[in-house]
Amino acid sequence: MAMTGILRPGHVQLRVMELGPALHHYKEMVGLIETARDAEGRVYLKAWDEQDLFSIVLREADRPGMDFYGFKVLDAKTLEHYAKRLTDYGVAIERIPAGELKGTGERVRFETPSGHLIELYAQKQHFGNGLPDVNPDVWPDGLKGMHPSRFDHVLLNGDSIPETAKLFQEALDFDLSERIVGPDGSMVGAFLACSTKAHDVAFIHEESKGRLHHVSFHLESWDEIRHAADIMSKNYIPVEYGPGRHGLTRGLTIYFFDPSGNRNETFHGGYIRYPDHPVITWTHEETPKGIFYYGHKMVESFVTANT
Amino acid sequence: MAMTGILRPGHVQLRVMELGPALHHYKEMVGLIETARDAEGRVYLKAWDEQDLFSIVLREADRPGMDFYGFKVLDAKTLEHYAKRLTDYGVAIERIPAGELKGTGERVRFETPSGHLIELYAQKQHFGNGLPDVNPDVWPDGLKGMHPSRFDHVLLNGDSIPETAKLFQEALDFDLSERIVGPDGSMVGAFLACSTKAHDVAFIHEESKGRLHHVSFHLESWDEIRHAADIMSKNYIPVEYGPGRHGLTRGLTIYFFDPSGNRNETFHGGYIRYPDHPVITWTHEETPKGIFYYGHKMVESFVTANT
Amino acid sequence: MAMTGILRPGHVQLRVMELGPALHHYKEMVGLIETARDAEGRVYLKAWDEQDLFSIVLREADRPGMDFYGFKVLDAKTLEHYAKRLTDYGVAIERIPAGELKGTGERVRFETPSGHLIELYAQKQHFGNGLPDVNPDVWPDGLKGMHPSRFDHVLLNGDSIPETAKLFQEALDFDLSERIVGPDGSMVGAFLACSTKAHDVAFIHEESKGRLHHVSFHLESWDEIRHAADIMSKNYIPVEYGPGRHGLTRGLTIYFFDPSGNRNETFHGGYIRYPDHPVITWTHEETPKGIFYYGHKMVESFVTANT
Amino acid sequence: MAMTGILRPGHVQLRVMELGPALHHYKEMVGLIETARDAEGRVYLKAWDEQDLFSIVLREADRPGMDFYGFKVLDAKTLEHYAKRLTDYGVAIERIPAGELKGTGERVRFETPSGHLIELYAQKQHFGNGLPDVNPDVWPDGLKGMHPSRFDHVLLNGDSIPETAKLFQEALDFDLSERIVGPDGSMVGAFLACSTKAHDVAFIHEESKGRLHHVSFHLESWDEIRHAADIMSKNYIPVEYGPGRHGLTRGLTIYFFDPSGNRNETFHGGYIRYPDHPVITWTHEETPKGIFYYGHKMVESFVTANT
Repeated sequence: MAMTGILRPGHVQLRVMELGPALHHYKEMVGLIETARDAEGRVYLKAWDEQDLFSIVLREADRPGMDFYGFKVLDAKTLEHYAKRLTDYGVAIERIPAGELKGTGERVRFETPSGHLIELYAQKQHFGNGLPDVNPDVWPDGLKGMHPSRFDHVLLNGDSIPETAKLFQEALDFDLSERIVGPDGSMVGAFLACSTKAHDVAFIHEESKGRLHHVSFHLESWDEIRHAADIMSKNYIPVEYGPGRHGLTRGLTIYFFDPSGNRNETFHGGYIRYPDHPVITWTHEETPKGIFYYGHKMVESFVTANT
Repeated sequence: MAMTGILRPGHVQLRVMELGPALHHYKEMVGLIETARDAEGRVYLKAWDEQDLFSIVLREADRPGMDFYGFKVLDAKTLEHYAKRLTDYGVAIERIPAGELKGTGERVRFETPSGHLIELYAQKQHFGNGLPDVNPDVWPDGLKGMHPSRFDHVLLNGDSIPETAKLFQEALDFDLSERIVGPDGSMVGAFLACSTKAHDVAFIHEESKGRLHHVSFHLESWDEIRHAADIMSKNYIPVEYGPGRHGLTRGLTIYFFDPSGNRNETFHGGYIRYPDHPVITWTHEETPKGIFYYGHKMVESFVTANT
Repeated sequence: MAMTGILRPGHVQLRVMELGPALHHYKEMVGLIETARDAEGRVYLKAWDEQDLFSIVLREADRPGMDFYGFKVLDAKTLEHYAKRLTDYGVAIERIPAGELKGTGERVRFETPSGHLIELYAQKQHFGNGLPDVNPDVWPDGLKGMHPSRFDHVLLNGDSIPETAKLFQEALDFDLSERIVGPDGSMVGAFLACSTKAHDVAFIHEESKGRLHHVSFHLESWDEIRHAADIMSKNYIPVEYGPGRHGLTRGLTIYFFDPSGNRNETFHGGYIRYPDHPVITWTHEETPKGIFYYGHKMVESFVTANT
Repeated sequence: MAMTGILRPGHVQLRVMELGPALHHYKEMVGLIETARDAEGRVYLKAWDEQDLFSIVLREADRPGMDFYGFKVLDAKTLEHYAKRLTDYGVAIERIPAGELKGTGERVRFETPSGHLIELYAQKQHFGNGLPDVNPDVWPDGLKGMHPSRFDHVLLNGDSIPETAKLFQEALDFDLSERIVGPDGSMVGAFLACSTKAHDVAFIHEESKGRLHHVSFHLESWDEIRHAADIMSKNYIPVEYGPGRHGLTRGLTIYFFDPSGNRNETFHGGYIRYPDHPVITWTHEETPKGIFYYGHKMVESFVTANT
């Protein structure tokens, strides 16, 4: 198929301060489904329309943030292809043995110049989306909370954005869909896609490494964004921005926080993008509009709060 | 990028009985944008968010229907790759010289077992989507009618569905996302994707060859479906079904007709699909629900009217 | 307040063939809340955002249909005012003692020329909408099914439509918002309002008396209409029309049936109407468009099926 | 009809600094329709679905703000009834002769304790909503901008809120639907309705008199709110809050400013309210949630900016 290579965001492992409130947040409020726990006490969750065993892993720790972000690739051969491409590119890779994450095959891990651990893997246990493969309905019963259909992407903060984008483009065949440039014309934000989505991962510059800006969940409509906002208000979940819109990707959005301070996003929309489409550039002056299309004002915490 | 090979539905050439009413329909009602005409009198149209010069070509003729359906591939090398794959598969190909369609490079054409002319091409003149590549807004001013963002797919009627699906899968790397089976278990409907869309082309069986069932345009929301339905009612455009939903693809839909009797669709939604997702099957008994998820009744004209 | 006299549709008593399936339908599918049962076995239900004890009463019987339709009036003095107005108009009234319906004060009942039993009452036990009166959220937790916010109106079939409309206008101070006229110019449909809604009750002609066409429930958005349609499809609830729209009232709609064959409607929208607004007329030729604004085709069962 | 007495917000006269930019804003951006100008240079505008000649009057002046706010009453007799009620209540009334505003009958004007000029009138020239009274479509062609269906209400700032609310309730038969109380339990906000809307006018305390907080326009859906937000962003219209929601009234909202600094609102939703419904109270602690249901943070300018 035309869809080969690196397929999609497959999982993210998040650090949370206390598992109890975190599970209440991600299961009852966001509406993810718990599918497994492991001997280390990690909890595995998925969005309802995902087929694989999990996409979110919660690990209790003494500080919030992201341990690693994994992409599923088409097959074992593809995994080896990209392992070699990374090595040839001069990036050190580490092989995490199958089973270290529940139901997951071997993972090839590397660190980006921005200081983030990224993984590729080819195999994960099938779980299903709650619908049969024969004559399925359009959604299963029993959905809760904001009930996103999938984990969509992460946005990461760190330095060395141009080098990081180059790595994704040259070693991993990602497309640069949009970029933010600083006052001096340098790239301070990179939105990168491995599919026809407007982005599958994004990086925005800051003077440190390995920070998580947000984890994004896909909703089905602007009305589900409103419904999610209602849930946040009813339950006193801290909201940073939204319901709103990004100029970048055109996505409709809410930024909010989990109990550990990890930023979440509910996301809908965003254009379909093909590799022959032009790269979009946001200038320094219009970056506030690019990020906060409704309001045009840079929300202070957007650039100061990450985990 | 992961998105390689055959990228997307690129164009369809439709036969219309009279150009005047057809242009009123596709420009003022549907809201496509005219971008060119050629010496043969053909009119070239595009949806607003498409980047290439055209996606719909109207040709005046004495009967309605589809002349051919074209897919854009990544590049010239990919075009030759698939030309060879088709030839190796035993399919005769015809090379249509560059320029036969305005601003379009060489096309490699073949006929499916179902009797449809399908084309691949690698190059088409860039036109843009009415927005700048620097600091773009989320939509351009001046949109008209139902203002779809893109031409999305066609559904074709003919015989030899299993052979046609096999050709798309084996020679062109399409994925089978969903299939309809007849009372005897044979495949009578095939939904095929070259991307993460639920389908980029579909075939449903009938005892003739080369028929067009519908041409589909993508809208941005269920509310735009309502708006499109309002326009159809105000302007006495014949509606066959909808606003409604398909079980197949989960897409929200309206079926309606152009003045020549070609069926159109406005389409929103549909799941995102990856190649490791299961193939969905619709049984004979539940096919009416699969196609007309709201109502469950097979609309008579759905199986009798095509062009 | 400007809002005086007859306030709103307060209740309808429906006959159902079997209470079990009816309760499954109205509670689990439609999403009404059961608030009481009485010694006669009647079950009392309400929509979540209604304040009074009930709006729908189900009575098991050997045929479906409507026993009576009641309007709440402002207060006891208003009830006596309209009792006298009806008597002065020449209409016989019956007084149903307080308590015959749970938690409900005395009802003044009369029969319309169309053969329907209509009631007025001033008092009903308060139940609340699940939200506090201090710092309420925008909706309560625990809503089920299509979760309408209120019982909205009924449409009734019978003869003597002009006489019935005249009674509502002259004795009860309703406004005629819209009317349907037959080929000979006579009124065959009357939409009547006691508020700023486009209608609080409607009558459409047929050659019998006292028939129920449908009971309507108000949803909050076009997206809730879609959600309701999903539920109907998932649960094989028979749908007659929709998601669609009426030209009359502009309301967005689905017509569907309860297990006893009583037609239900989910309804959203409809204009706000003031008494100084013009009466809208639908001619015989355009009545199909007026009722089925999407499609323009008179659905056969619309004029043949009632209870 | 039940709908008698004071019917609805009929007009507001706004002061704008320069007519040119104001007309661009209200006509091209908001999408009001200009229907008349007068010898004084005032411009008369209406929302598309209003029947009367105008609802917004723009007057060029050296400071922004509101000159007066007028309610339409049912008829001349009602006008005299309320003139007497006001006089009996001890409020001085002024009679503005017919014709002072274009096409408008005599107006009875008084000043509220909060320092605002309020008017009642019974007659205004009919203009229509662009749709015929026979077989109308659901909206007319040619709508522009955010195309609200009506002018909905104003929110006013001033002192003496309890006295002002009392006047509306006791002399004008308005209902108090919601109130905000201060730390000491005193009423600092009053939401008042003359219909089944959640409010037709509102007052919030500040230590001055006669200030305008915002003029509100009704949109048809949450999706139209999004569309309006897109227009504001594209055109750099200053947005204060939203798309968001109020806990008070449950309305979906955007606050934005006209070029003179007058605050506008686009508004959708809000519950239907009857006079037998409980009054809702917002405590001091939860007032930020009541006003800014999405976010819970009091926007600084909300309490400092008015005109």
